[in-house]
Amino acid sequence: MRLAELDENQLLQALSPYFRHNQETLVGVGDDCALIAAPDSQYVVSTDMIIGEQDFKADWSRPWQIGRRLAMQNLADIAAMGARPTALVLSLALPNELELDWLKSFYQGLDSAAKQVGAVIVGGDLSRFHTLILNATVMGSLDGTNACTRDGGEPGDLVAVAGHLGFSYAGLDLCRQGYAQDLSALPAALRPLAAQCRDIFKSAEPPLAQGPRAAKAGAKALIDTSDGLLVDLTRIAKASQVSIELSIQALDQAMAPLRPLADFLGKDAKEWVLYGGEDHALAGLFPPDATVPKGFQLWGKTLAGSPGTITLAGTKVASQNRWDHFGGTHE
Amino acid sequence: MRLAELDENQLLQALSPYFRHNQETLVGVGDDCALIAAPDSQYVVSTDMIIGEQDFKADWSRPWQIGRRLAMQNLADIAAMGARPTALVLSLALPNELELDWLKSFYQGLDSAAKQVGAVIVGGDLSRFHTLILNATVMGSLDGTNACTRDGGEPGDLVAVAGHLGFSYAGLDLCRQGYAQDLSALPAALRPLAAQCRDIFKSAEPPLAQGPRAAKAGAKALIDTSDGLLVDLTRIAKASQVSIELSIQALDQAMAPLRPLADFLGKDAKEWVLYGGEDHALAGLFPPDATVPKGFQLWGKTLAGSPGTITLAGTKVASQNRWDHFGGTHE
Repeated sequence: MRLAELDENQLLQALSPYFRHNQETLVGVGDDCALIAAPDSQYVVSTDMIIGEQDFKADWSRPWQIGRRLAMQNLADIAAMGARPTALVLSLALPNELELDWLKSFYQGLDSAAKQVGAVIVGGDLSRFHTLILNATVMGSLDGTNACTRDGGEPGDLVAVAGHLGFSYAGLDLCRQGYAQDLSALPAALRPLAAQCRDIFKSAEPPLAQGPRAAKAGAKALIDTSDGLLVDLTRIAKASQVSIELSIQALDQAMAPLRPLADFLGKDAKEWVLYGGEDHALAGLFPPDATVPKGFQLWGKTLAGSPGTITLAGTKVASQNRWDHFGGTHE
Repeated sequence: MRLAELDENQLLQALSPYFRHNQETLVGVGDDCALIAAPDSQYVVSTDMIIGEQDFKADWSRPWQIGRRLAMQNLADIAAMGARPTALVLSLALPNELELDWLKSFYQGLDSAAKQVGAVIVGGDLSRFHTLILNATVMGSLDGTNACTRDGGEPGDLVAVAGHLGFSYAGLDLCRQGYAQDLSALPAALRPLAAQCRDIFKSAEPPLAQGPRAAKAGAKALIDTSDGLLVDLTRIAKASQVSIELSIQALDQAMAPLRPLADFLGKDAKEWVLYGGEDHALAGLFPPDATVPKGFQLWGKTLAGSPGTITLAGTKVASQNRWDHFGGTHE
């Protein structure tokens, strides 16, 4: 059934299984606003829009994956403040030709990501347009911990990263080389890794639980690596007025699992790890005496050098954005 | 200067005057999330998207008016919960050809509306697209009062409305009949009223302060009349499981100021008042013994009849949505 055949009430009825309640939902979908609890009298909020064919390709990704990615890239921003996501509101512009099944699958993907951290969809706005426009706004709770902004670091802090690095870029390269759907032309030994990279590219798997864990462990600064490790470490270094020295060992360790696939595709695993965006890993600065939570890898330390400079084993590395989000149109 | 000539940092720099702080802004623009205070441990949130040429016409409205309208239609949802708006986040998709001056003027309009109620823009997401897509998510605080949801009414309540009714529909009819810019072809006596209707259509002037006042006065239910008085009263009546009896006197009083303009344009002032959307008036149900706040007009009372039925002097009136938001594409 195409959306053209449904009025707004019928559409909302069809989507009602995805409008759930959690502990924070005081008023959910169906009023002028949602009403959300903020137990510690503050909340975090972030918003993000994706546009059909520009930010995702319908022939590469299934609607479930597109919904999951939209949720995940928003939820990762919440985690990057050290917070726990609680609620989402959606604004969607939908083509009349769209199948209701597509939309249901999109909501299922979104809901699957939200459910993983106990968050729910509490409201939204539906309109019609010839191109899919999908906007999510996500709210979260700090549960009494301090917000991990980007500017809290000092010289001497530990630099640590949780989550995948380079996997999403590897997945994009796989799709570009014709492996968006079918991996059977790859050597059998590469297929499990290739499948993982492709899935991470299509729907993102940020380490959401690590955000609140980092906050509890005393993280002084935290960021979501949406534009690639070096670009986002530069942001945190600039905001904290420090330079960052990274270790070759950490880079080698991050490259190791990706190397066989990079070699096969004729790509550079180092480029994937340092410049690949949309893995939505979490990069943080911790006090020198902190016990960095399990799941975070030590990558180096902050120094009092020129703010925003990143060095790798003593050599300055470039940190311009090389990750193009399908051609440089999306920022 | 066109947006194509600016990178993201330059664009954010140009917009920085509109990223302000208020008492609730703990962390504003520039981090992964904004952090907002929620003094009474809860907050309301609503989101709304408008799309270029579908929801507004660039040759009818100036960018300042479009920004102001986007803010106002979101802020009205906050008021319709009885809440005070505190913060906005924006997601914008912008054409490369767009002039920076257009965008600045849009932000000025948005900010002028937010400033009126002490709210500020605290974050957002910018991307590029061939059509303007403008999404705002607005948060607000109840300051210790109860949320005015739609379902709190009972038989015997007073029905009262604050704000303009029919002025926006009159403004749309003026634009459709060629008076979008120049009113000089109208009789001089009609011009002030015509200018007011046109301005309300272009940028909306909801009675935002009346939301919290209604909540403090004990409003049991409240709604923003975005789809027209009868459609939105039907929603509140259905949610509260009551019928509503409206008075001819109230209708006559609401029609009176619009009549000369309706007569001149060959339109029906009654249609404007009862079915015109986007005035964003506030309609509420108050206990029978309440002192309805100044600015609210009494329109009738709730009865125990068939839930969702609206009668006018005893006769049932139709409440289907006749307001087409530029052709029925926007819901």
